[in-house]
Amino acid sequence: MRFLLVCAATETARIEGISAAGATRTLMAHTPAADAELLAYGQPALAPVVPVSPDGCPTPAIVTRAVREWTDFPLLVCDAGLAAPTGAPTVSLGNRPGGDIRDPEPVSNAHVVYECGVELGRSLPDDHLVVGESIPGGTTTALGVLTALGEPHSTSSSLPENPQSLKERVVEAGLRASDLEPGDCAGDPIRAVERMGDPMLAAVAGLAVGALDRGARVTLAGGTQQIAAAALVRHAGIDAPLELATTSFVAADSSADVVGAASALDLDCTVTDPGFPAGDHVAFDHYRAGVAKEGAGMGGALALAAERGVSMAAVRDRIVACYDRLVGEDGP
Amino acid sequence: MRFLLVCAATETARIEGISAAGATRTLMAHTPAADAELLAYGQPALAPVVPVSPDGCPTPAIVTRAVREWTDFPLLVCDAGLAAPTGAPTVSLGNRPGGDIRDPEPVSNAHVVYECGVELGRSLPDDHLVVGESIPGGTTTALGVLTALGEPHSTSSSLPENPQSLKERVVEAGLRASDLEPGDCAGDPIRAVERMGDPMLAAVAGLAVGALDRGARVTLAGGTQQIAAAALVRHAGIDAPLELATTSFVAADSSADVVGAASALDLDCTVTDPGFPAGDHVAFDHYRAGVAKEGAGMGGALALAAERGVSMAAVRDRIVACYDRLVGEDGP
Repeated sequence: MRFLLVCAATETARIEGISAAGATRTLMAHTPAADAELLAYGQPALAPVVPVSPDGCPTPAIVTRAVREWTDFPLLVCDAGLAAPTGAPTVSLGNRPGGDIRDPEPVSNAHVVYECGVELGRSLPDDHLVVGESIPGGTTTALGVLTALGEPHSTSSSLPENPQSLKERVVEAGLRASDLEPGDCAGDPIRAVERMGDPMLAAVAGLAVGALDRGARVTLAGGTQQIAAAALVRHAGIDAPLELATTSFVAADSSADVVGAASALDLDCTVTDPGFPAGDHVAFDHYRAGVAKEGAGMGGALALAAERGVSMAAVRDRIVACYDRLVGEDGP
Repeated sequence: MRFLLVCAATETARIEGISAAGATRTLMAHTPAADAELLAYGQPALAPVVPVSPDGCPTPAIVTRAVREWTDFPLLVCDAGLAAPTGAPTVSLGNRPGGDIRDPEPVSNAHVVYECGVELGRSLPDDHLVVGESIPGGTTTALGVLTALGEPHSTSSSLPENPQSLKERVVEAGLRASDLEPGDCAGDPIRAVERMGDPMLAAVAGLAVGALDRGARVTLAGGTQQIAAAALVRHAGIDAPLELATTSFVAADSSADVVGAASALDLDCTVTDPGFPAGDHVAFDHYRAGVAKEGAGMGGALALAAERGVSMAAVRDRIVACYDRLVGEDGP
């Protein structure tokens, strides 16, 4: 087993009200870079801060790191187009952040990123890849891709109130700019990403296709962004078994039916509830209130912990230790 | 503890007769990239082959990998200027291979690579860094740097017969091209690398300076190339304790006094003998005959095994298993 974190950026995240993955829009550019450092080192290295949402919810990378401290899973960070440097070691699958999906071709290198992903997925020695992601603004680009593919699924949000109508307006503007109708990219996953997606989606789809091609087990770790990645795999004509591992927070989001979408795409879906108690710790309270919900492979990490017999209580203890070490006991 | 492998290339390696780090000069460009993949995955990923010398001696990365399989040390590969892509995750400390030292300024970005190294060395959370290297042609550039600094030490070779006079001629041509006399760069380590070195040396020196600055323990893992890196640290005015860990094969090389040079630079020197028996395995026989000798942090890895109570017999068993898996039982 190897845990991959696929990091990238999209200019779409700069639209006001789209994402909670960073305290400010400027700091948001550092979130994937910092998530990678947290997983690699347990603390930031070159990144300026520990990512928190505007109201102080810590990045889900803290949860994934907590599981890593118990299970010591091997980590591989993929840079599909970061907007800020990271001190974590990465394999580069692309060389530039994605543009705003309201532009005609936000991911003009989608083909290259996808092919690099296929090649790496095919080359890795591991019989099981768990693939997480970190890209602020990614649920909007995921909605763009699903719409372009003609998949009827909506996407969740890192904000407690999903800005659904804003996202739909952005996607509509993107379709207009790309001269597309919903469903026009069915069967053409690379075009869907190129016109309406982000570089993470191209990379994850490629990695999954490459690994499935050599018979490896693939778990997409995340919420509705991974639904979009899975849809790309299906639209590439791959019907091999494929797994989704997400959190109870995404599953509980009534604005997006992740379990139904997984079923429609023939994904084997695992939902893990970390059992965050009320009033126990500020980080838990944020997640209980629906902030963040997922990210940095949190759902996959929790499923891995369960698979390896690490109790959720043990994971929670380590989350609190990570949080207090990184953010400070008095919060951000 | 974290094990760093600093990879780079220098055009100097293309001079006929300089290096044994690759079956052919074309394949040599892939050696550092493949070494990184061997350490990361235990097998090549994107690299086309397992590196062997022209007469079939396997890369010392097999030894370092064997130790990693026993001790599971955390690995960080640094790309200081690779000439071929690697599928191993890397932190980039530079963006281009070094030129031929017979040109005036073979490492024109030495300052940037050094500063990136300092910043990363300072940022890592580990109390102990073991820093290995992989760069074909590196003993010639190491000799260039030592000469420019005015350090009287000669360098070893990956070839059983050290092409000392060829290396000296290359260094003399380099000094002429750079308009330098021996010793002209004393106290100016960055200029020494810029004019006469390779990107690996800039990166390793920077990493060591950054880590020493925050009080971390630093072990330079390798032979006379690490003597050159240590000389750069000393010429940067740093007199903090610094360690060198090398192999008995380098120490036994009468053409270069690694132990004496270490002492002159006030390095705490560890020499480890992996006890390769005669006639037991083709890989062992090559090393006993003086091929390769060191590289990819082999000496540091062996010292680490000894420190952690892993017997050399256990390491040897794993080397044979790695070799047979990668190169085939019938040899290359």
